[in-house]
Order: sequence, then structure tokens, then C-alpha cells
Amino acid sequence: MIDGEDIFLDFKVLQIDGRSAARLGVISLPHGSFTTPIFMPVGTQATVKTLTPDELYAMGAGIILANTYHLHLRPGEDLIAKAGGLHSFMNWQKGVLTDSGGFQVFSLKGLRKIDDNGVKFSSHIDGSLHYLTPETVMEIQQKLGADIAMCFDECAPYPCSFEEARQAVRRTALWADRCRKSHSQSEQALFGIIQGNVFADLRERSAREITDLDFPGYAIGGLSVGAPKEHMYSMLDLIDGLLPAEKPRYLMGVGAPEDLLEGVKRGIDMFDCVLPTRLARHGTALTGRGKLVIRNAVYAEDFTPVDRDCRCYTCRNFSRAYLRHLIKAEEMLAHRLLTIHNVSFLLQFMRDIQSAIGDGSLSDFSAKFYSEYRL
Amino acid sequence: MIDGEDIFLDFKVLQIDGRSAARLGVISLPHGSFTTPIFMPVGTQATVKTLTPDELYAMGAGIILANTYHLHLRPGEDLIAKAGGLHSFMNWQKGVLTDSGGFQVFSLKGLRKIDDNGVKFSSHIDGSLHYLTPETVMEIQQKLGADIAMCFDECAPYPCSFEEARQAVRRTALWADRCRKSHSQSEQALFGIIQGNVFADLRERSAREITDLDFPGYAIGGLSVGAPKEHMYSMLDLIDGLLPAEKPRYLMGVGAPEDLLEGVKRGIDMFDCVLPTRLARHGTALTGRGKLVIRNAVYAEDFTPVDRDCRCYTCRNFSRAYLRHLIKAEEMLAHRLLTIHNVSFLLQFMRDIQSAIGDGSLSDFSAKFYSEYRL
Repeated sequence: MIDGEDIFLDFKVLQIDGRSAARLGVISLPHGSFTTPIFMPVGTQATVKTLTPDELYAMGAGIILANTYHLHLRPGEDLIAKAGGLHSFMNWQKGVLTDSGGFQVFSLKGLRKIDDNGVKFSSHIDGSLHYLTPETVMEIQQKLGADIAMCFDECAPYPCSFEEARQAVRRTALWADRCRKSHSQSEQALFGIIQGNVFADLRERSAREITDLDFPGYAIGGLSVGAPKEHMYSMLDLIDGLLPAEKPRYLMGVGAPEDLLEGVKRGIDMFDCVLPTRLARHGTALTGRGKLVIRNAVYAEDFTPVDRDCRCYTCRNFSRAYLRHLIKAEEMLAHRLLTIHNVSFLLQFMRDIQSAIGDGSLSDFSAKFYSEYRL
Repeated sequence: MIDGEDIFLDFKVLQIDGRSAARLGVISLPHGSFTTPIFMPVGTQATVKTLTPDELYAMGAGIILANTYHLHLRPGEDLIAKAGGLHSFMNWQKGVLTDSGGFQVFSLKGLRKIDDNGVKFSSHIDGSLHYLTPETVMEIQQKLGADIAMCFDECAPYPCSFEEARQAVRRTALWADRCRKSHSQSEQALFGIIQGNVFADLRERSAREITDLDFPGYAIGGLSVGAPKEHMYSMLDLIDGLLPAEKPRYLMGVGAPEDLLEGVKRGIDMFDCVLPTRLARHGTALTGRGKLVIRNAVYAEDFTPVDRDCRCYTCRNFSRAYLRHLIKAEEMLAHRLLTIHNVSFLLQFMRDIQSAIGDGSLSDFSAKFYSEYRL
């Protein structure tokens, strides 16, 4: 408990950028505090792929995301509860946010059946049948023991009809109310999720319905499902004015550097994305000049570091040529070293953004970023 | 250069166990010194699978082995020479030993053609044709730049006929002489290899022929190819009396704890083996009580460390239940954490053996080991 009864999240806005909606803040949770805006590395199966907790601490990660859908199926929330919760199970002492599993369940095309009560689906692992409702999702997340839990929501695909998106907004509000009522708040903050796809009036409705329920934080869902970036940015412009300024805002599933920067400018405080770990698996590095496909032959005899401006463990110790060799030889160390670099890069990028907001230079930072970064 | 001209390896025997041929010593190389007997983790493709150099330093590794066959094929010794040699390429500042590639080439059933001049073979990667001779193998290893290089030898399989083993012994001596002549000794020590399979008179002949060439160290090859352990032990008993006491002795490809202990008792100073990294890949841990198949269901809710007596990073931080979850979920961190444990375990095992030789308690150590270890 941070500050008063039943409140397990404290958020303070320290500074607001004059020329955009960007804000510098600090979030305090039962497992520590961190400065916002922040990027949360994704640890789907109770591990940020290839990394140890110590490596994440060294990079300055303050909070990670774990996936309720995956952990519910394997090893199961009861086993994790017996271990003392996710923090103890994976030996991670900083913040954890669990998603609701909704996004994964709705991605299971053909394997799921949904109605107003909940979703029936088959496990992608063994085909076993499962049934998730707002109440079971709250119970699962409480057993997982994250610092922040998410409401069970319905995320409409892109593209979808207005009617489909409307249905998802309606159900998301219905379920948010049930989540709110069944969530016991035991050392865990529950965030509401705003849906509405790319339809402005649905986003407005969803923002109103969800904020009326008064959550300690709000997430914006459904903007990482493939819509053009302009849609994302215009939806964020709209939503900025609809959310209470004193609560943290989390843009789900977004992590490309340009989207982090544009999200921050539109008032977003938290982000998560599998991008850095997924790119690493495919032999690609994120740099201030754009993506570098290290597996390409052009780097075979390049003995310089991945990113000359980066101070991560990988860039301080290894060359592009060595990384390329490891990739070609299918050595796991390639995946590790690129993950270290990519996650470090995004965490450092957010710290640079924090500094820029702090000293009022975010627009200069943005101009410099776009002049150097190859989209 | 360590001590006098053309000598890049210094070996001092510090103490000899009274009741066995075990000896405590120290080897000095251009890249540092280490106490013997020692276990060398295997870094086949210029990486000890899943580990960084820093992790190996933290475990106390003083020297690693890299495979000439693999590195010749990919990325090639010329690229590694351009990087400044293996140490620089992989950013490893301690000792490196490269094997000769012979063992791998002779394992390529059907893909190779051998005569007294050398071996023609097809790459397992792309089928390209290659030709290795004692002279090219010396050139490759000098470009790789290891502290210790190995003579190109012929390793007979087990079982094999006396005639096959005799042929391999003859060729091994012929090639050792050519290796000796073509090796330039540029900051690299060259070890001879003794073959002879499980035939006592061939081992005697090989030991005599190879020691007559006067190398700074001697390896015993062909005892990790599947012969029963009793054969290995009796061959080592024999060879102990045939090798000069003042030169280091290296038993190739052997790494099971009981074999390390029995090898040490028979005067061996150096060992290498893929066992700890391979077992890790298969979800198995080495402990003082035997192998533990962590992937087994019995460990699903076991929240104790892999080995209660181990102080490695894995045992200090994670439970069997968490490791089993990572294995079942096919997470790379499982492979990493088990590799850390297994390599740490063998390095610690050798340090314990060193201490036991040092204080004259090796026979007690051995009795205790066999009373606790489940073979």
C-alpha cells in the first residue's frame, strides 16, 4: 500500500511539456518506483526472452509485462501463487503488470466462442478447453500477483466494421464494471482499458464509460492491431483530452521508437511491446539511425559495435562481425546480445525523452530524432 | 612469451598426491595463468553456448576450447585473423585452446577421404569441398590465434581392429612431425596427441613416438569415443608412466565428474567436454548427487534450488519449479541458467579437487564423492 487505504499505485506528474501533451512523472508501486514515460519489456512466459532479472536491472528496467493468457495455460496461476506470486517465481523485484489475456484470446481465430458472459477457447498448447470471464480473469491476475492488473476487454481487429467495434466497446464497458466489482485490490492496482478501434465517437464513448468507473490508471487498447500510424496518432490526440490528467495512461502493444515519441507527445506515460525481443530473434538491431539487419552479409567484416552511440553491454564488448557470425551459426548468444541491445536501446530512448521533457527540449529532441532516424 | 625464447607455455607442478598420480600445478599462457587440474568449457563456434565471457570469468573459467573444424568452415580463419584472432573476435581475455579438427573430420562418415597427406571432406554446412593437411591445420590454428594448438591426428573409432588403430597411430606420428616442423610457435604452444585406442602396445608406441618429438604438452586422444570406462582408466594408468612428469597432460573430450576424478588420479591436468552445455540443452543438471532431470514432472512444484550446495548464479536465484517451467515453455533462459549451473558445477568440482590435492585429502574427497554421487 502506497498512500492511503486501497491505493497501491501513486502517480505524480512532475512536469508538463509546454508544446505538446508530454508529461514527466513518477509511478510508485509495491515493488518500487520509476520515472515516466516508460517502456515495459515483455516477459510473456515469466521471462523477458533470453534475459535474467539482473540484466534487466542493469539496463534500468523498472517494470515488465507478463501475459496472463500464457501463464494461465502454463504453468498455471495456482503454481505461481504457491511460489509466492510472479515476483518470487521469476525472482524479479521490480514492477510487474499483467495483461488480461483478452488480446491473446481474441487472436485465436476459430478456436474461441464469445458472449457477454465471457470467452470459451481452446489452448494453443494442448487444445484443452478454457473459459475466461471478467471474474476469472481478476482471480487469475490476483494469483499471479502483479503490481498492476488489467481489466478483461474485447479488442476488435483492424479493419473492422463500426458495428463490430461498437459491440466491443459495449462489452468492454460491461466487463470493466464486473472487473472493478470482483477485483479485491489486494496490493494490486487495476487499470481500465479504452477500446473503439479507429472510430472517434466510439473512442469518446469508451473513454467516458471507462473513466466513469474511476480506475487508478487507463490503458488504450486496440491501436497495435495493424491500423495505419496516422489513425493511431489521431485517436491519441482525441483521447488525451478525455482522460483525467492525474492518472497514468498506458498505450498497449506499441514500441517502435517513432511511436513511443509520438505517444509521449500525446500524453502517454507507459508502453509495452515485443518489438525489441522479436527483432533480436530475427537478427535485427534498433539504433538511433534506424533498424540494422545484422545478419546481412555487409556486416561480415564490420568490426565496429552495433550502435556507436550505445553504452549497452553488447555495444561495449562485441562487433557487428561477431554478432553476424553468431547469427549465421545459430548460436543463442546472438539472440541474447541483440536482446540486450534492443531492450537497452528503448529504455535509454525513454530516459532521453524524460530528460528532454525535464529541460523543456522535447521538440528539439524530436527534430533531431527525425533527422537521424531512418523509418 | 613466458619464460625463455620460443616457449609460450609454462607449467609448474606444485604438489603431488602421495597415494595417486594426481598433481596440483599451474599453467601460464600469454592470456593468463590457471591452476590445474582444470576443466575447459567448450566454445565450439567461438562461444560457449549461451554464455558471455563475463559469465565465464565469474565462474572462474581460466581457459576454453574452440573447434578448428567449425571455425574454419564458418566464419573462416581469415575473418577471425582480421578481427585480431579468437580472443579479440569473441572478446575473451583468458586462455584458448583450439583442437585440430581431426576428431570432427573423422566423424564425417562417408563424407571424407583420407591418405597419408591429409583429409578431403565435404562441409556439413554447405557441402563445399575442403582439404586439411598437417600444414594447413597449423596455418588455420595460427590464424585463429589460440594460446594452445593441437597437432592434426587420426582418431580411430571404438570399436576398431588392431590394424585400424595401428594405422591411426602411424599416421598420427607422421603428422605430428609435420605439424612440429610447420608450426611457427608464434605466441602459441603446440601439443602432441597420443592415440592407440584401447590397445596397450599401441598406446605405448604412440606415447614414445610423440614424446620423442618433444612438445610442450601432451594430449590423450581417442578415449571419448565410446569405449567402456575401464578401458579408459587402464589406458590412463599405462600412459601415466610413459609421459614426462614436467609437461601438462590433457585428456580430450572427457568431462563426467567421475571421469574427471579418475583422470586426475591418473595424472591428468586438463580436460574438456561438451557434457555440461549439452546436458543443459536437454534440461538436465549436474549435481553432487548425480544428474537431475529438471524437466521431469516431479520438480513442477519444487521451489528449492537445483543443488543446495551450489553457489552459482542459478542456484542462488531460481527454483527447480521455475527452471522446469522455462524448459516446458521452451524459453532460452532455461538453457542459459542450466548451462551456468552445469559449467559452474564442473569448475567448482575441479577447484575442490585442487584443494584436496593441496591438503593431501584427495582419497577422502574421492570416498565422499562416491558415497554421495549416483552414477
